[in-house]
Amino acid sequence: MEEVGSATTTTTAGGAGFEPLEVLEFAVNTKQAAIEWMIAKLQAPADKSGADLCVSAMVMQHNQETVLFIGGSTSRLLLGAEMMDMMKEYKDGNQREFTVEDISNFRGGENPDMFLTMAEKQKIIFRELENIRATDSDEYVPGYEFIKLYQGRTIVKKLLSADLIKNLFPIHDQEFLKKMGADWYKKPVASQPIEKIQHYFGEKIALYFAFLGFYTVALIPPAILGVLYWITSWQNLYREALFAVFNLVWATIFLEAWKRYCAELAFKWGCMDFVSTNSEEPRANYHGRMGKNPVTGKPEPVFPKSQQYMRFYGVTVPVLCLCLTVAFYAMLGYFWLQAKVDKWYLEDKSWLNLFDTFMPTVVYAIVIAILNAIYRKVAVRLNEFENHRLQTSYDNNMILKLIMFEFINCFMSLFYVAFYLQDMRLLKSHLAALLITTQLLGQIQESILPFLFHRRRANRLDKAMSKFDTLQKVEFYNGEVSTDLQKQVSIESTMDVYNGTLDDYLEMFLQFGYVFLFSSVFPLAAVWALLNNFTEIRSDAFKMCRVFQRPFAESASNIGAWQIAFEVVSVMAVMTNCALIGMNPEVQKLLPSDITAVNIVIVFVAIEHLLLAVRVSVAYFIPDVPGWVEIEMAKIAYQSKLALQKEQLARNLQKKRHEDLELNF
Amino acid sequence: MEEVGSATTTTTAGGAGFEPLEVLEFAVNTKQAAIEWMIAKLQAPADKSGADLCVSAMVMQHNQETVLFIGGSTSRLLLGAEMMDMMKEYKDGNQREFTVEDISNFRGGENPDMFLTMAEKQKIIFRELENIRATDSDEYVPGYEFIKLYQGRTIVKKLLSADLIKNLFPIHDQEFLKKMGADWYKKPVASQPIEKIQHYFGEKIALYFAFLGFYTVALIPPAILGVLYWITSWQNLYREALFAVFNLVWATIFLEAWKRYCAELAFKWGCMDFVSTNSEEPRANYHGRMGKNPVTGKPEPVFPKSQQYMRFYGVTVPVLCLCLTVAFYAMLGYFWLQAKVDKWYLEDKSWLNLFDTFMPTVVYAIVIAILNAIYRKVAVRLNEFENHRLQTSYDNNMILKLIMFEFINCFMSLFYVAFYLQDMRLLKSHLAALLITTQLLGQIQESILPFLFHRRRANRLDKAMSKFDTLQKVEFYNGEVSTDLQKQVSIESTMDVYNGTLDDYLEMFLQFGYVFLFSSVFPLAAVWALLNNFTEIRSDAFKMCRVFQRPFAESASNIGAWQIAFEVVSVMAVMTNCALIGMNPEVQKLLPSDITAVNIVIVFVAIEHLLLAVRVSVAYFIPDVPGWVEIEMAKIAYQSKLALQKEQLARNLQKKRHEDLELNF
Repeated sequence: MEEVGSATTTTTAGGAGFEPLEVLEFAVNTKQAAIEWMIAKLQAPADKSGADLCVSAMVMQHNQETVLFIGGSTSRLLLGAEMMDMMKEYKDGNQREFTVEDISNFRGGENPDMFLTMAEKQKIIFRELENIRATDSDEYVPGYEFIKLYQGRTIVKKLLSADLIKNLFPIHDQEFLKKMGADWYKKPVASQPIEKIQHYFGEKIALYFAFLGFYTVALIPPAILGVLYWITSWQNLYREALFAVFNLVWATIFLEAWKRYCAELAFKWGCMDFVSTNSEEPRANYHGRMGKNPVTGKPEPVFPKSQQYMRFYGVTVPVLCLCLTVAFYAMLGYFWLQAKVDKWYLEDKSWLNLFDTFMPTVVYAIVIAILNAIYRKVAVRLNEFENHRLQTSYDNNMILKLIMFEFINCFMSLFYVAFYLQDMRLLKSHLAALLITTQLLGQIQESILPFLFHRRRANRLDKAMSKFDTLQKVEFYNGEVSTDLQKQVSIESTMDVYNGTLDDYLEMFLQFGYVFLFSSVFPLAAVWALLNNFTEIRSDAFKMCRVFQRPFAESASNIGAWQIAFEVVSVMAVMTNCALIGMNPEVQKLLPSDITAVNIVIVFVAIEHLLLAVRVSVAYFIPDVPGWVEIEMAKIAYQSKLALQKEQLARNLQKKRHEDLELNF
Repeated sequence: MEEVGSATTTTTAGGAGFEPLEVLEFAVNTKQAAIEWMIAKLQAPADKSGADLCVSAMVMQHNQETVLFIGGSTSRLLLGAEMMDMMKEYKDGNQREFTVEDISNFRGGENPDMFLTMAEKQKIIFRELENIRATDSDEYVPGYEFIKLYQGRTIVKKLLSADLIKNLFPIHDQEFLKKMGADWYKKPVASQPIEKIQHYFGEKIALYFAFLGFYTVALIPPAILGVLYWITSWQNLYREALFAVFNLVWATIFLEAWKRYCAELAFKWGCMDFVSTNSEEPRANYHGRMGKNPVTGKPEPVFPKSQQYMRFYGVTVPVLCLCLTVAFYAMLGYFWLQAKVDKWYLEDKSWLNLFDTFMPTVVYAIVIAILNAIYRKVAVRLNEFENHRLQTSYDNNMILKLIMFEFINCFMSLFYVAFYLQDMRLLKSHLAALLITTQLLGQIQESILPFLFHRRRANRLDKAMSKFDTLQKVEFYNGEVSTDLQKQVSIESTMDVYNGTLDDYLEMFLQFGYVFLFSSVFPLAAVWALLNNFTEIRSDAFKMCRVFQRPFAESASNIGAWQIAFEVVSVMAVMTNCALIGMNPEVQKLLPSDITAVNIVIVFVAIEHLLLAVRVSVAYFIPDVPGWVEIEMAKIAYQSKLALQKEQLARNLQKKRHEDLELNF
């Protein structure tokens, strides 16, 4: 059997025309030496440690900014797809890792130019950009002796962090956007075009929208129940308890059902982990001395695990503890101040003092905003410092850091009111205020502001239009760029950068907490959440399509640490709701009158343990992966096993024949 | 590439001599027609739906029992090894599934006669025996029209359950036994020869002994601490609490560490699940209409999952609930009677009444013994009725059924004393009595009785010796059986049958519960357990080697549902110990004197939740599989993936060439 060489094969040379896929914009005043050096790296063939891409450079007349339009030949892109183990649909309907040699057996492989989608091409080029690493002759960025380069580290990330590259983004596909938008944010009630979203934005963002949609639908039953409780006079003493139990079971089922749906989507998209993550490529920013992957044998940086642990436990944990303590004391300070001011007001009910009663809240809000800004910077630094090998573990650790802080900010105060002050009226109003204001603020931030920005951008468009003729061609020029595209890119370069799904998930996470942690106190929370999410889907979709630069498609097989975060909250919800109901004097009246206070507590602790046991068993007995996906995956694993056996056998037979031949001589 | 055909290839015809591997003993008076029919099935070639094995039949003169010595030619056995996907060591040191064609590349493959171990050969033959299934012409067992046969069902199991086959066992390997015994039960302090045990008894039994050894070593630290507490006067009020917390953390670490060690063993033995269980062969007793496996495509019985669920929830669950309720009421009845009798005795302290105070315990013990016997029969029936596809799921469901019943019998009474009666003195004495008596009884059952039996067997040996010449050859005779072996088999056929690891694990499980559930009350429990296990290892080993017929080797990659059972107990231990410590008046004195009773409870509930959270996180953060095993597994998965790609490509190229050729004509 021959070795499957890949680097040498080329399919239909891609000279059909230059398709610009990504834009790289240098900052004003970037030295020409650095720009030319970068362009040379982009264009140089692979054997000269270049990316072998097509580049057309232009200069904006009014500010002398250099803009690079980057593309690649079809054969270059297909090779890139093979190198990154891209999953494509095989003719038998399964998702397989693409290889150039086997292209004719992939669906659509007859026409190599049209084989890859635009998003896929952009993903390939992005990876190639990241793979431009400093060689031993690159000591610093030409023209910038103070920007040191280290052999093997990604150059593009360095230039981005040094602010020499101002913008790096894939170009939007206006036609596809229009089609997708019509099915998505323009329809008030309809399921989202998840496949299209995955096609255009990649799995990570598609999973966010799938989750958002799934969660919104899951909110309908609790919302209906909440409304029923609210409008009917049908009231009895068990109602809070019943509602809470329903919510707990419902939250568990929802989270388990989501896992199954998510597994289905991931399997369909071919991004289910078959092989361990040990064989995945490391992140661009992962560094260490060069070694090789223990599984695949491919060269990659190696960073000792022990040092990673040391960094985490020695640096991250103490710093985080400090930050969380500060946040906690800020909260305590707020309650102390509020109590003091309230007392003053009770003593002297003047207008001035009434105004003062709002002061602590305002001060706290400002303090939180400042702390939050600082904390996020620190968290990103720490996370980068921990040097995670995989994007997923980087993301998960970032999520963990964020959640801990936000949990203290958002929920600790509710816990304080509920269990220390034990003031149910205050809890209800505090909860309602938090839920409704955060949602209103969120809506303004995500719907109204984007709409205004969109307006402003339309105005900018006119200005930009008048500037095109000033775009100047420069010597590095691999192909023509149409004026329409030049126009489009000029607009897109002024758009905001999408910061990833982190904040979007965080919003849902906090909402989930508000709705389920205290559902026995405020059953209407689900209604508010439902109303909010209904518009949230549309405004998030609009934001993705019209407000932000197109993000790079990232793959993901699940929602990562968020799943665990939601599950932890659903477990905590069992505890908080049992405690809240147990504290309710109305409920206590239901128990036999001769019961002691201690026994009341024990009864509710027993109920809580029972519910926790139910929760654990439900989660255990619902399989995380639907039956058909499991069987399909087992099929692939089984076939792989047989293929390995066969290959081994063939290789051994060949070796033997070889030895026999040698013996004969 | 050629298809890897297996059925046609034969390596060195195995005519070196007949090696009897297994013995099948018919009951006295079994009709000759049935015996001859069975022998014919055993000897018939595969294409006549026979097992293609070698059989030598003999008749015992004194009772006319027919004994079959069963063996197989080397090529037959190797083929069987391939059919059952047996894992063998490849020349590169890895475990691979054996194929006849590739034999020369497996370690020891140069000598096919010696390639398989005796245990492996016996396992293969047993599988072949199970695979003798009724054909459409077999309506009933010849000579027994009332024993109906159903097409596709295993004949041997049917004959066993109809008591026509009295004994079916693999023959012991005296030489190996002697060697293994010297390293095992004859050494008072030494690690067990786990590899040898796996080699001789198979993975399932080897894992039991590995677990027993691991658990015994893990008991040392709590035992030392327990002794220290007991002998020193160093006492303070925190001691129970400290000891309990130590035990909880220790139990968690032990269970996690065991998982890792178990994964290592399973990987070394090549029985780690790479592929999903969907591709495994079904149990011999699994029945349904014939269909094919959705993953491998091999023919196998198919039984709808929905019906399985219906049987479980519709029949098993109600019956079990009934049984458990009866057991629970028996326990309540015992306590009620005991209280009554104790009162009588207090009223009239006569000798007769003192005697009466022991009556309830005796009655309860008898009732439990009867209930237990009935319950076990019911449980086995139900488990068989549920028709599990895999041996592992059959075993796990059996374990579950057993544990629930034993839990009520053994622990419920302790819970009753601890939390309903809240009598710590009674709890301590009850616990000590339970622990020590069960262990003493166990030791008698497992050490002293076997020794006596062994003696008796030695006497039988003499008797048997005088009977050999009476063993009569009959017409079905594939080879000579040495007199020594005839002698040995005569003895072995009188030995007890090993009932599987179920009861051995159960003993450890109950002990684990006694030690950890109430460790804050009775710290010396660990010492007793340690002492017991120390001899337990030896007596169990002796039992396996000298008391029982050799069991069939079964493979297993972990201890199955026992892992979960131990984990559940370790979680419950957190709850019980927190409650016990919280109820301790000495501990309560430590808290601020102005604390209310309600707040004491809340404090201990909070501590309990904290400990549970610690337990969950420890379990979450310790990986279940050691790093090196994970990497080795990833390597195999990665190579399989590459091989599948390569194979697919080769197949497609061939197809294309074929099509091109056809086009040319």
